[in-house]
This record gives sequence, C-alpha cells and structure tokens, in this order.
Amino acid sequence: MDDLKNYIIDKASHAKEAFKSLSSADTELKNAALLKMADTLMESMDYILDANSMDIAKGKEKGMSRALLDRLLLDEFRVKSMAEGLRQISSLQDPVGEVDKMWKRPNGMTIGQMRVPLGVIAIIYEARPNVTVDATALCIKSGNAVILKGGSEAMESNKAIVHVISGACEAAGLPKGCISFIDTSDRDAVNILMKLNKYVDVIIPRGSGSLINFVVQNSTVPVIQTGEGNCHIFVDESADMKMAADIVINAKTQRPGVCNAAETLLVHKAAAEEFIPVIAQKLFDRNVEVRGDKKTFDIIEKAGISKSGKLVPAVEKDWETEFLDLIIAVKVVDSIDEAIDHIYKYSTKHSEVIVTNDYMNSQRFLRVVDSAAVYVNASSRFTDGSEFGFGGEIGISTQKLHARGPMGLRELTTIKYIIYGEGQIRK
Amino acid sequence: MDDLKNYIIDKASHAKEAFKSLSSADTELKNAALLKMADTLMESMDYILDANSMDIAKGKEKGMSRALLDRLLLDEFRVKSMAEGLRQISSLQDPVGEVDKMWKRPNGMTIGQMRVPLGVIAIIYEARPNVTVDATALCIKSGNAVILKGGSEAMESNKAIVHVISGACEAAGLPKGCISFIDTSDRDAVNILMKLNKYVDVIIPRGSGSLINFVVQNSTVPVIQTGEGNCHIFVDESADMKMAADIVINAKTQRPGVCNAAETLLVHKAAAEEFIPVIAQKLFDRNVEVRGDKKTFDIIEKAGISKSGKLVPAVEKDWETEFLDLIIAVKVVDSIDEAIDHIYKYSTKHSEVIVTNDYMNSQRFLRVVDSAAVYVNASSRFTDGSEFGFGGEIGISTQKLHARGPMGLRELTTIKYIIYGEGQIRK
Repeated sequence: MDDLKNYIIDKASHAKEAFKSLSSADTELKNAALLKMADTLMESMDYILDANSMDIAKGKEKGMSRALLDRLLLDEFRVKSMAEGLRQISSLQDPVGEVDKMWKRPNGMTIGQMRVPLGVIAIIYEARPNVTVDATALCIKSGNAVILKGGSEAMESNKAIVHVISGACEAAGLPKGCISFIDTSDRDAVNILMKLNKYVDVIIPRGSGSLINFVVQNSTVPVIQTGEGNCHIFVDESADMKMAADIVINAKTQRPGVCNAAETLLVHKAAAEEFIPVIAQKLFDRNVEVRGDKKTFDIIEKAGISKSGKLVPAVEKDWETEFLDLIIAVKVVDSIDEAIDHIYKYSTKHSEVIVTNDYMNSQRFLRVVDSAAVYVNASSRFTDGSEFGFGGEIGISTQKLHARGPMGLRELTTIKYIIYGEGQIRK
Repeated sequence: MDDLKNYIIDKASHAKEAFKSLSSADTELKNAALLKMADTLMESMDYILDANSMDIAKGKEKGMSRALLDRLLLDEFRVKSMAEGLRQISSLQDPVGEVDKMWKRPNGMTIGQMRVPLGVIAIIYEARPNVTVDATALCIKSGNAVILKGGSEAMESNKAIVHVISGACEAAGLPKGCISFIDTSDRDAVNILMKLNKYVDVIIPRGSGSLINFVVQNSTVPVIQTGEGNCHIFVDESADMKMAADIVINAKTQRPGVCNAAETLLVHKAAAEEFIPVIAQKLFDRNVEVRGDKKTFDIIEKAGISKSGKLVPAVEKDWETEFLDLIIAVKVVDSIDEAIDHIYKYSTKHSEVIVTNDYMNSQRFLRVVDSAAVYVNASSRFTDGSEFGFGGEIGISTQKLHARGPMGLRELTTIKYIIYGEGQIRK
C-alpha cells in the first residue's frame, strides 16, 4: 500500500508540476501536440492492435460477455476514429485565456474574469479504450494535466495508447507529466487518488453507477458526477400524436443503453385513450417491454393488443429505475402538475421532455423542471456534447455544482479574477 | 442519534419541497420577502437583543475572549445593518431565469443556457449572528432554500433571528421550508447534514480552517471551500517604491484578521536594499512582526533599525502560515520566476499581488499565477464581493470547481439547458 501510494503521489506531483507550464501554453503548441498524437497513433496501429488483442484474449478467457468484448475491441477503424477525434478537438476554439467580461470599479481598478484550466484532472473509467484518447485530448486542449485510471480489462490497450500519445505530446514540446497513467489494477489506486487534494483538483468518474457512487461517497477531492439518466417524456393533452410517438420511439429505442435514453413515459389522461394504444403497439413492434400503471394496463388490454408484446404491471421500483434496456415504464397522469411532481420525485435530473402544443405548459415545464436538459418537442437523445455543438464531451454532469449537462472544453475550465490597478488601496 | 437524524431529514426534506416553488418564484415576490424580513427585524429589535444578551452572558461565563464576545455581540446598530443588508440585496439584479446565451443547431433546435438556483444550500458557520441574515438573504434572492447550522455560542441569537426572518418570509408568501435552522448544538448534526445528498445540493462551511477541513474531508454532498488566504505581495525591481509600501501596509495592517490580508512579502533582489529598510520601518511602526529570510534579516540589521521593532528569522513554516495577525514573512527573491515558484508552492490560491512597472512582468504574473484573484498594483484587500461590485458575498471560494473568489448571487446559481424543438429526433 505504501509503495502504491508513493507511486501515485509521484505521478500526481509530476502532473501538478507539468500543469504549471501547460496552463499557460499557447493554443498553437497544444494543437500541435494533439495533431502529433493523432499522427503517432496512426503510425503505431500494429502496436496498439497487438496490445488490444492481449486484452481481448484475456477477456475471452475470463468469459467476458460479447457486449463487453465489443466495447473493448479495437480495430483499424476505431483507432482511426480516435485519431480523427484528436484532429477535431485540435480545431475547436481554446477557451483558456478568454476574458468573459471586464468592468471598472469606482476607484479606477479594472477587474476581468479570465478563463483558466482547472488544474490536474483525474479520470477514472472502465472498459472502452477510446476514453483514454478522448479524455486526454479534451484535458490537454483546455490546459489541464490528466491522470488516467482505466479499468483492468483494457490495461494493455490503455498502456499502449498512453505510451504512444504521451510520447507524441512530449515530442511536440509539452512537459512529460501532462499525461499520466496509473499502471496498476489494484483497486486501492482509486482510494489513494481520490484523497490527494494537494495535487488533484477534480476527479471525474466515468462508468457504472456503482463506480460513480463509490467515488462520490469517498472522495475528498471535488468530484463531477456524471451519467445516471432516468429520463422522462411527458405527452401533454395538446401534443401532436405523431410527433409524440416519433419522439418516444427515438428516445427509447435508438440506443437504449445510454444515459439520455428515455425510461419513463407520462401521458396526460386526456390523451391516454388515443395515444397509449398507438405507442404501445409501436413499442411492442420494437420488442420494448411496457411496464404500465393500472390505467395504462387497462387501456392496452381494452385495445386488444396486450398479447402482441410484453406488458407487465409497473411497480414502485420501475419509476426510479434507469433500465438502459428495451423496457419503458408508462403512467397516466391527471395534469401537467402531476407529471412535474412525478419527475421531481423520481428523476436523476438528466434530461426530460414535454411534447405539447400548449404555450403556457411548454413555458411552465421549461421553467419548473429541475434537470440538466429540459426539452420541448424534441428527443432526449440530443443531450450530448456533439449534438449541443460543443464538439466533444468528457461526460454529462448530473450534479449542479460547476457544470451541468454535457461537459465540453469550457466546462473543463474555471475562472480567475485579474485586476489592473494603479496603486489602489482599501480605505 | 436516530432522533437527531430524523429531525434533520425532516428539515431537509421540507427545504427540498419548498425549493420547488421558491425556484420559480418571481423576483418581485422574493424582493417583497426580503423587505418584509428587514422591516420585521427592526420591529423585533428588543426580542433579538434580549436573545443575544443570553448568548453574551453564557459566553462570559465560559470565559470567551473579548474578540469573540465582540463578534457575538449585537446592538441596535448591528441589527440595523442587517436590515440594511437585506434591503440592499433586494435591490440587486436577480440572476435566476437569465439566459446567458442561446444558439440554433443545424437541425433547427434552439438551445439556451438558463440560470437557475442550485437548490438546497446548507451553511455551516460559527460565531457572528449577522451571517444568519446575510447568507439567508443571498440564498433566498437567488431562489435557493437554505439550511442554517450556526455555532452553539450564538444559539439564542440565531434562533431569534431565524424566528423573525422566516416568519416574515412566510408572511410575504414564500413557503415555510425556505429557511430552516438546525436547532441543536450537537456536533453530529453536521455529520448528518453533510451526507444528505438526496436533499442537500451544496454545503458551504464558513469559519475556522478546522471546521472547513472537517467538512471537506467528510462531506459526500458537494462542498464549496471558502476562506483560507495565504496571500502574497511581490515587489518587483521596477516597482514604484511608494506605491509598493502603501500596498504592503494596506494589505497587511488595514484588517489583519481577514483572509484577503497579505501574509508574505517577496522582494526582488534589485529592489531589496532600497525597499526593505523603508517597509520594515513602516511595519515596525505599526507593530508588525517581521519574519525575514537571511537576506532580509541582514538588510534590516545593516540599516540599523532592527531594534525598532520585532524582527525574527523566518522558518519554513512561516511561508505556509496564514498568520491572520500583525506578522509578515519577508523573503528576497532573485527573479519574478522565483517569486512565482514560491507562490505556486505555498499559496492557498486566494489573492496575490505584483507591484511592478514592467509590462512583460505584469502580464506574466497575471497569466501564470494560479489564484482566485491576481492583482497588478493594488491591495489584496479588495478580494471581496462588495469591492468587486457584486453587492454582497456568501464567502470567498478558494477551490476551482464552480466558483472562484468572491461568491455573489450569480455564484449561487447553476445553469440548465432549455431546448426548443419542433419534433426533432436523433438520426
């Protein structure tokens, strides 16, 4: 444990040291490093694929599921995508050094709010080796040193990737400590890392709910909580039924395993008789299991389509579950207020949708629903850095402090006040 | 413990419930509540002063220091100042509902970034009863429900104040749970509060370093760390010596017990022979103890003024200490780089000052020094919400996440994304 601790402190203190020059590095230098990383990644294709095949072999040996093996797998196309991602991030605008506003005080002092990097960011993640490249690129571009702690399943792949990109980064002229990789599968590494307030400014866990919870519960370093999305769609009385159906199907089925997929459908009672049979049939056709409250259940039974798909009565637990699967909970509500109350009670504050043509209701929903992204008449699947136009994201924050929703380059910065005086003293 | 826990959960869940309507309350209603609080405070003068005199009596019994008793004491003037503070906060612009920016995506969706309150804010503080009013006013104005946990020394005063202001708040039409007070001196209350992630969105400890540290180390609720200020002044070679002396004296002596007071003076070696004797004499004249490094010590001795004040050799610990007293550590540095390195190593990242007339050095200092407020040619004492023009502050953040430096109304808000669609789904 002491050896491990020293090893991690050594990495973290080097990261802190590297940050000192990285934080004020010019955009040109950071971009050159990203492009060099992209080129070197392509040149090192065989090296990376070889390392990855070791992880894959080990995964198969351990009986890893096909889905997980697929997430772990790298091929030429995927490595090329990583390189493309690096090039794309190099082309994004650098927020560091921007002065958001500047004002003059009555005593003549001028105060500006300047965007600066956060410092040293630790990313704790699982499975997908592409996170190694994406997260690093966003951190470097925004002037932050990064400490990577990936999952043991992808150890060889991650090591190879980090070897390649950190070499490139250094060759381009950035200090060595900008990218650190914690080369151990020892779970204690996370325990140590999340207590290093002296060196680590922010910790971002990415992966399963249990990983994220573990970090939130135990870290003394400030955490940005990402991910969990129990997203709701409320179909209001005045909704266009076709639009509502399209949005529900898209939000539920286009990619059910992600955090911005819908999990619960709330239907206004005045729309229920018309809408529920239609949407239920569409959901059944796409193999979506419907967990309906009493009213939903009755309507579907009455419509005579209950046998054409999987229909089960909803229980309390269904309202709070992020299924991440082809399952949807459905409830009939008496009013928009009941819908809002339901969301207030069960939501993880990720993304919520109202489908409506009522002006007052649209405004009310936007104003009162307390989630990172609140939609009128669009699919919750758009809660994503690229879809929002940020050019990339390091995760989707579901907490309120610092960043909310998709976190792009800007969310990886903070501000400092710069003050220009001419000898002012306080009276 | 279970009773206490239930008591606090009850308060917190009521706060969460109250937040639901407070978060979307109109500015007019919130302002009316603040003004009503001010009026009622003035009408309840005797009631509050009586309660305070109980705390004072208890404090004297316990042998509380004069300084602490003074912090605890309320009189007509101080209660009037609290009421004035409420009126002033009612006149500030409400950030809630502002849309910072709005943009259109290629698919026609319009995305806006709307300012919204954080939610339920717990304030844990010590001694000064005026914090009860100030913190509450800032929270209510920014649409946040507040849970107050004051120190046991001020228990009667705080209880009386909360009784008065929460009654006024309710009379004005805001829900009862907007202002909660944890009516116990049991230290476990803090332990319970800082684990209530389900109800409490942010926790802000205000007070001693040990209190703040305790919360940072143990809270699972996101914390905003405030306060500690080991502030530096670097007097560069090209500094105007009179300006430098004025700034050092102001930053060190105008109010030595606060976080934005200067603690360490760094002097460029080329300015040392001229500047150090002058500033040392001025510091001695104001009873400031000088803890000098070898060079500083020698210069003062050589100038023949070492007997006119308290001069002691600086030890390593002095560079890292926030004295909060009439003590200053002084060091001669070879260059601006050595000054920056020293600050990088010892600073608590609060406020740092360069006094210089060199353009390149001023820019370099502003860019590289990684603290909440970085000054050129002005006193560090200006790091304060009112002095920055925010009209008030709930504390000075020394962390990087979310808010940095003085935290006004805007820093008590977060954003949510509001999305206007016309049926868009993700391809």
